[in-house]
Amino acid sequence: MFIWDTRYETMAQEEIQQFQLEKLQALINRLYLNIPYYKKIFTERNIKPQDIKSLSDIKKIPFMDKDVLRLNQPYGLFALPLREIIRFHSTSGTTGKPIAVGYSKNDINHWAELVARTLNAVGVTNNDVVQIAFEYGMFTGGLGFHYGAEKIGASIIPVSNINPEHQLEIMKNYRTTVLIATPTMALNLANVLEKLNINKNELSLRIGLLGAEPWNEEIRNFIEEKLNIKAYDSYGLSEIIGPGVAFECQYKEGLHLSEDYFYAEIINPETGEVLGEKEEGELVLTTLTKEAFPLLRYRTRDITSISKEKCKCGRTILRIERLKKRTDDVIIINGVKIYPEVLSKIVSEEDSLGDKFEIKVSREEGLDKIEIDVEIKSGSFANVLSDFIKITEVLKSKIRVTYNIESTIKLVESTSLSHIKKRYKITDLR
Amino acid sequence: MFIWDTRYETMAQEEIQQFQLEKLQALINRLYLNIPYYKKIFTERNIKPQDIKSLSDIKKIPFMDKDVLRLNQPYGLFALPLREIIRFHSTSGTTGKPIAVGYSKNDINHWAELVARTLNAVGVTNNDVVQIAFEYGMFTGGLGFHYGAEKIGASIIPVSNINPEHQLEIMKNYRTTVLIATPTMALNLANVLEKLNINKNELSLRIGLLGAEPWNEEIRNFIEEKLNIKAYDSYGLSEIIGPGVAFECQYKEGLHLSEDYFYAEIINPETGEVLGEKEEGELVLTTLTKEAFPLLRYRTRDITSISKEKCKCGRTILRIERLKKRTDDVIIINGVKIYPEVLSKIVSEEDSLGDKFEIKVSREEGLDKIEIDVEIKSGSFANVLSDFIKITEVLKSKIRVTYNIESTIKLVESTSLSHIKKRYKITDLR
Repeated sequence: MFIWDTRYETMAQEEIQQFQLEKLQALINRLYLNIPYYKKIFTERNIKPQDIKSLSDIKKIPFMDKDVLRLNQPYGLFALPLREIIRFHSTSGTTGKPIAVGYSKNDINHWAELVARTLNAVGVTNNDVVQIAFEYGMFTGGLGFHYGAEKIGASIIPVSNINPEHQLEIMKNYRTTVLIATPTMALNLANVLEKLNINKNELSLRIGLLGAEPWNEEIRNFIEEKLNIKAYDSYGLSEIIGPGVAFECQYKEGLHLSEDYFYAEIINPETGEVLGEKEEGELVLTTLTKEAFPLLRYRTRDITSISKEKCKCGRTILRIERLKKRTDDVIIINGVKIYPEVLSKIVSEEDSLGDKFEIKVSREEGLDKIEIDVEIKSGSFANVLSDFIKITEVLKSKIRVTYNIESTIKLVESTSLSHIKKRYKITDLR
Repeated sequence: MFIWDTRYETMAQEEIQQFQLEKLQALINRLYLNIPYYKKIFTERNIKPQDIKSLSDIKKIPFMDKDVLRLNQPYGLFALPLREIIRFHSTSGTTGKPIAVGYSKNDINHWAELVARTLNAVGVTNNDVVQIAFEYGMFTGGLGFHYGAEKIGASIIPVSNINPEHQLEIMKNYRTTVLIATPTMALNLANVLEKLNINKNELSLRIGLLGAEPWNEEIRNFIEEKLNIKAYDSYGLSEIIGPGVAFECQYKEGLHLSEDYFYAEIINPETGEVLGEKEEGELVLTTLTKEAFPLLRYRTRDITSISKEKCKCGRTILRIERLKKRTDDVIIINGVKIYPEVLSKIVSEEDSLGDKFEIKVSREEGLDKIEIDVEIKSGSFANVLSDFIKITEVLKSKIRVTYNIESTIKLVESTSLSHIKKRYKITDLR
């Protein structure tokens, strides 16, 4: 059994809850005293830190969401002086300005611990050669897994998000045993392997730790078969810490959430009501140990449910069901999150275009394709081909700049979108 | 005065030499015993480790160069078992297959120390917010500076090599005080600053640590003036360790080489003869402390000279003159090293093209542009425009895949290149 930190991963549930309550109370005291935002929301609700006497009292505290973070950018919610922040990362920024997140030295150590658990849970050891194909830089995926793999003592190949051909060459030459990537990258590698006529047995790969986008059992089976590996899911988000929030063990029956670092609730996304075990709803997370950028009751927009049943692996910490949906309209194309609202803004900047558009997503050989059909305002073009081409190129270029993806744009007569009742429609053919 | 490690940076020269000799002897023993390549070259020359009795005896050992590294890829020159290698990086691979380099845990710590010296020497402290705009991943620039800045305790923004507009936005929002980048990126930032009408005084920037490509006083003055910073040079190469091999101090009179980690010689690149102080020639480096991938007498191809005069900063370690030239034909375009031999190979893959080409490099608004004029084999085209476009696109695409740069390709009649006597000509208009 691979358990990194037996003390905390297999604590009795009452003990975990007592531990969580103490951490929560200390955190609330600190935030109330030091950060005007928290003082304000506590005062508005007429509550004091000492009113949080049990974990269920957390319900008294209002939720936070991305809008709250955005309003307090860049440093309004930081709970330490800037000179104690040793690292900055940010969210992808595809729904607006990226949100800056900060880490103290302890936060970085804790993060590495969390990722070490994630890696260890699926059997990664210091004998492994780990190829990290997540983007390095401001994105938390690359450096997050890097520090975790370093903590485990594995050999790290920090390839970052380079093309699959080059990934495969490195994988062969360096005898990589563990791939850390998006499921999309794993699919790409499987396809390129076939194209280059490389036998999967020439590789030394044995484990794939995949995440940062939703995937399912069908994709898992395909990747496992094509790359001859065991593939595991993990979950994290930059606002909370990055990768390492929850992780699959070898039994693949949900993701273990590190309850010594995070307090989880499931709520009804419409009413905010806290739901019970096994009930599906929006995951809300509270960071219990974060120093630089702690969050109370952060709405993740991810839909899941909680199970407190003990897992076959021996862990007692709760499990969340694999994440498949979000509360917001987001389309994930090859690992990039696309927000229709952002596309809507881009479309609206062109005078000659109408408001309506349809986003068509399909998959060819494991690769996602996006086509956007946009209505033309009647009378704005004199049917000149060069005008069509120009406006198409402008849209493609803006989408490229915003999301770094290639899209197909079709300008269509508005009558052909009359079936769309709202501003946009998403047709996902995957 | 900012001296990170007074003990070693200000050691008396005789003491340094004694220290170096002991390290060198230990290294040679280890390599002779463990690595077949070294046993072989020692045997061929009829020398034994104990024959190296003084530093000048190093002349008995043959030089190594990139070809030696390439022949022993990927693991032939590694001096530790693979499970003790905790990190891989590689050279850019633009002259052929990238060369894998490996690091033990101690190597990574030493590397961080070296970069900490580099940063500290120009006054970077734990109060600084350091924006690292070098590419992260296999390239040693990003993660190399990252670990050094972490050692110093500075706040790190790991932006990696993203576009200048986004760099500037982060620089403003996060109140960056130190920029770590290529001179080209700094030039780009200066240009974009003017375009976006941002006043340089809105930035909190005070220091630029620039490197990974040759630059000069003129460029330094321009960058210092436009960004309102002090700009410093540093030197390193992946084969040796990455950034941190030599660094400028605040007096900007040559680069201090960390002699406790590296033994430096200057040779005549034609004859291999070891030259004296102040004589210009090729820099040859021996790693004294590297565990995973040590090198004896590695020819860097960089042309410089050595000065042993004590610097005004108090350091006694030798200085190398700023690096301006290399012994090989390399063109540096916006920080990317382009090898004409590689372009020649790309051109030769197209049957309808001749052998000759001219590479024209120019600079517009601080940005380098490359145009390649290639001769067409007479009779291979029936003057069909689509054929010209197709072949141009193929070349551009291959160059893009190899170097990740955009080029302009012109197909020309062979008579117009008759002035070129060799296969190619480089016309550098910068």
